[in-house]
Amino acid sequence: MQELPLETTVRSRLEYFLDRPAIQRSILLLIVINAIILGMETSASLMAEWGDVLHALDGAILAVFVVEIAARIYVHRVAFFRDPWSLFDFAVVAIALVPASGQLGILRALRVLRVLRLVTMVPSMRRVVGALLSAIPGLSSIALVLGLIFYVFAVITTNLFGAAFPDWFGSLDRSLYTLFQIMTLESWSMGIVRPVMEVFPYAWAFFIPFILIATFTMLNLFIAIIVNAMQTVTEAEQKATQATIDAARDHIEADLHDEVRALRGEIAEIKEMLRGQRG
Amino acid sequence: MQELPLETTVRSRLEYFLDRPAIQRSILLLIVINAIILGMETSASLMAEWGDVLHALDGAILAVFVVEIAARIYVHRVAFFRDPWSLFDFAVVAIALVPASGQLGILRALRVLRVLRLVTMVPSMRRVVGALLSAIPGLSSIALVLGLIFYVFAVITTNLFGAAFPDWFGSLDRSLYTLFQIMTLESWSMGIVRPVMEVFPYAWAFFIPFILIATFTMLNLFIAIIVNAMQTVTEAEQKATQATIDAARDHIEADLHDEVRALRGEIAEIKEMLRGQRG
Amino acid sequence: MQELPLETTVRSRLEYFLDRPAIQRSILLLIVINAIILGMETSASLMAEWGDVLHALDGAILAVFVVEIAARIYVHRVAFFRDPWSLFDFAVVAIALVPASGQLGILRALRVLRVLRLVTMVPSMRRVVGALLSAIPGLSSIALVLGLIFYVFAVITTNLFGAAFPDWFGSLDRSLYTLFQIMTLESWSMGIVRPVMEVFPYAWAFFIPFILIATFTMLNLFIAIIVNAMQTVTEAEQKATQATIDAARDHIEADLHDEVRALRGEIAEIKEMLRGQRG
Amino acid sequence: MQELPLETTVRSRLEYFLDRPAIQRSILLLIVINAIILGMETSASLMAEWGDVLHALDGAILAVFVVEIAARIYVHRVAFFRDPWSLFDFAVVAIALVPASGQLGILRALRVLRVLRLVTMVPSMRRVVGALLSAIPGLSSIALVLGLIFYVFAVITTNLFGAAFPDWFGSLDRSLYTLFQIMTLESWSMGIVRPVMEVFPYAWAFFIPFILIATFTMLNLFIAIIVNAMQTVTEAEQKATQATIDAARDHIEADLHDEVRALRGEIAEIKEMLRGQRG
Repeated sequence: MQELPLETTVRSRLEYFLDRPAIQRSILLLIVINAIILGMETSASLMAEWGDVLHALDGAILAVFVVEIAARIYVHRVAFFRDPWSLFDFAVVAIALVPASGQLGILRALRVLRVLRLVTMVPSMRRVVGALLSAIPGLSSIALVLGLIFYVFAVITTNLFGAAFPDWFGSLDRSLYTLFQIMTLESWSMGIVRPVMEVFPYAWAFFIPFILIATFTMLNLFIAIIVNAMQTVTEAEQKATQATIDAARDHIEADLHDEVRALRGEIAEIKEMLRGQRG
Repeated sequence: MQELPLETTVRSRLEYFLDRPAIQRSILLLIVINAIILGMETSASLMAEWGDVLHALDGAILAVFVVEIAARIYVHRVAFFRDPWSLFDFAVVAIALVPASGQLGILRALRVLRVLRLVTMVPSMRRVVGALLSAIPGLSSIALVLGLIFYVFAVITTNLFGAAFPDWFGSLDRSLYTLFQIMTLESWSMGIVRPVMEVFPYAWAFFIPFILIATFTMLNLFIAIIVNAMQTVTEAEQKATQATIDAARDHIEADLHDEVRALRGEIAEIKEMLRGQRG
Repeated sequence: MQELPLETTVRSRLEYFLDRPAIQRSILLLIVINAIILGMETSASLMAEWGDVLHALDGAILAVFVVEIAARIYVHRVAFFRDPWSLFDFAVVAIALVPASGQLGILRALRVLRVLRLVTMVPSMRRVVGALLSAIPGLSSIALVLGLIFYVFAVITTNLFGAAFPDWFGSLDRSLYTLFQIMTLESWSMGIVRPVMEVFPYAWAFFIPFILIATFTMLNLFIAIIVNAMQTVTEAEQKATQATIDAARDHIEADLHDEVRALRGEIAEIKEMLRGQRG
Repeated sequence: MQELPLETTVRSRLEYFLDRPAIQRSILLLIVINAIILGMETSASLMAEWGDVLHALDGAILAVFVVEIAARIYVHRVAFFRDPWSLFDFAVVAIALVPASGQLGILRALRVLRVLRLVTMVPSMRRVVGALLSAIPGLSSIALVLGLIFYVFAVITTNLFGAAFPDWFGSLDRSLYTLFQIMTLESWSMGIVRPVMEVFPYAWAFFIPFILIATFTMLNLFIAIIVNAMQTVTEAEQKATQATIDAARDHIEADLHDEVRALRGEIAEIKEMLRGQRG
């Protein structure tokens, strides 16, 4: 019996080990515990009393994650980096290893993204997120149109109202932000448009069309998702109906063949009788 | 003739009595009257003049409810506690019996939940509430994902903005509340994000993605309900079409059999004639 | 030739006259002119200069409407009051005839409801309004549940927060109004719940469930309309499919009968030949 | 070989040249560059340093667009003005040529509309915008009803609340604007209705019905779009099912004919045998 090279043996054993339900459940449990710890670390009073313990636990769990990810990279090699879920796991664990100081201080806050590994571990959540992400490409054209509308309106508002209302429309990015706020309808009138109308009385002729166009486009984006989802349902139904029709056809034809075969049998008998007469 | 044990007789008679339409209607009427009384008790002027009468009426109606529930427990025994609607009736009546003082003062306010017994009594409302509740389990995965998104963003906002804006992001629960407010789009920009941006100019890069992710997820939750409802409709339609196809198939085959039987009759005649020739 | 009684002749001629397209178009034009006049009457500057003319025109148009409605009542008699659209026309014209003074001053403002006669005159608008109204009965159960939820929450908020926030929750009707505002999500947090939470820190535990329950119920009301509309569409489709299946069945069976008839012809020939042999 | 008139040759060559993918891509690129330039022109600091360059580039690109549009008009003649997309291109380029000064200063700001030519150039965006526009005619009846509701409520609010709240309801157009704000639910209660209720305590009896009617009508507008889109889907499905049924019918009948033909062959043989006997 030929021996497998040592490395292959180690890799396949490690893969088997990592895929064991007990290990998967343990990782899941560690993610949940880590989520709780990261939540507790936001409390100043808890940190004052248990800060060291929490940090130690957090570090220990992170170490487990790093070992786990390293093991998975060792097992799957390049394939690991081709799976988007694995890449996601890698990225959220890697964030915690970047020295978070100075400019990168924000990365400390992003350590909690690690908790999102729950999504990659729990199949039902993975399906939901997969469904959400898969809806996005079908929306790209409409999102592009919406983006263009925003850009055009942002340039116009910056030119028209930028000088008088620098906080809201002083630059392209401020205008974009304000237009986004207006599209969500948050304080669009009392907060933004009424004050603007005190300086430019006809500003409504600009903002109301924007609201109508932007919300109508958003609405169609939304409708596109519903119709796509419904199309999937009706297509499945369509296929089932088609299968039923085909089955009915086959059944009728089989029945027809049986009956005709029986008739032929009878006709053959007649022929036999005629041949008997003749002979 | 064997006599039933006394208790069985009492129970079956009581059940028959409780299920009589007149009794059901009386209970319904008492619930409505109780609703009106509880509404009147919120008025200080009405309470000053009619307080004693209202309290007495309320107490009397409560007594009827207690007797009714007790009778139903006596009749149905353990089965009573297995029916969720019965349990609901039990709970909302029981609340009124807890001595409402001190810490439990809030329970006094919850007495009005008794009015919700209307839902258990009126079949059309019961169907509506049943439909609402039955939509929930199908949404659990997506709700879990939404909960996770909230948790992650709450930890990040608490870490980043907690020190500067303690009222909004000072602790995990405050952040969760504020993020819920932002998801409903209430004052998200003028009330929360613009003030935050005065301290952290790039806060929009955090909140706008949150709004997009949270509302997109909510939207899909909403779409999931529509698509589920539509699926039920199209499945029913699918079955009706299938039945029509099957009926058409059976009809064609029956017709085929009739025709072939007739042909066979004619062929049998021919055979008879041939036999006659031969004989 | 028997003469019709005079009155019948007058009635049928009047009916014919009222239904003439030219008359219908004239009434339509008068409604539009009346709408413009009523709009112009809101302008103080226009009223200062043209007030008398506008009032005179308005009065003249009203007189035409009164005569028209009177004529229609004379023609259709009791049937007039059985048609909801006619009743509506009658009501909005009648409002203008009530002496609008003192307590009834508000009725002057309601004269503009006359403009809504456009809906009864333009078939496409009538269809739209008819469709809107026909959607309402199917929503009654869910609206009743929503009403009950509102009532229960209003009683609780009045009891709990009425004393501390009399403007918002001081009485049952104020609570109902404030809860309606909260359901529309307008300023629910910054305007209402955050101030309440400063006195009652756990108020969120009451208002967030209310928002979730109320918006979820509203959403289902909305979904019910969509699903009903879709059901109508799929039912029509279902019927068309069924008709196609039935037509296909009939076609196959007719074909089968033709073929079998031909076979019988041939068999009859054989019989004839056999009879010939025998003879 | 007959020579084509010179002009025809020039026109067909020019058309071929304009339709070349390379030219189309160049125009597309110029539109994007122009969009970026127009965006950069909103920045005071960039304008201070690069203003001349940006203006020169903008002018050059505009010149290219003018030449392109002129060439397309020369090629397509009247047909150019019959295509709405071409007309749109013409209009947004023409805006830049109007001398923008004094009263027409606003036209300067509208130069950015040129960027919307992207929509006419990119097929996927053109499809999206085409779909959005094609949804509008089906909504005209419901939009008309909504417009009428707005007009009637605006006249009433102007009459009732105009004197007390001139900023919100002082004239017909202000009332229309405020009612639009209320329909979007922006600050409708805290911002508008609560202040109005301090003067007119029963104002809620007017505004809450308005909100219910306006949002219910909007909702039905929205549902109309969904149902129309779904109808297209189910109709396509319906046709596919019909085609399947027809194909099944044809298949069964062809099978039937084959079988009957075979039977006839056998019967013909019998006849032949009988004829042989007779002879």
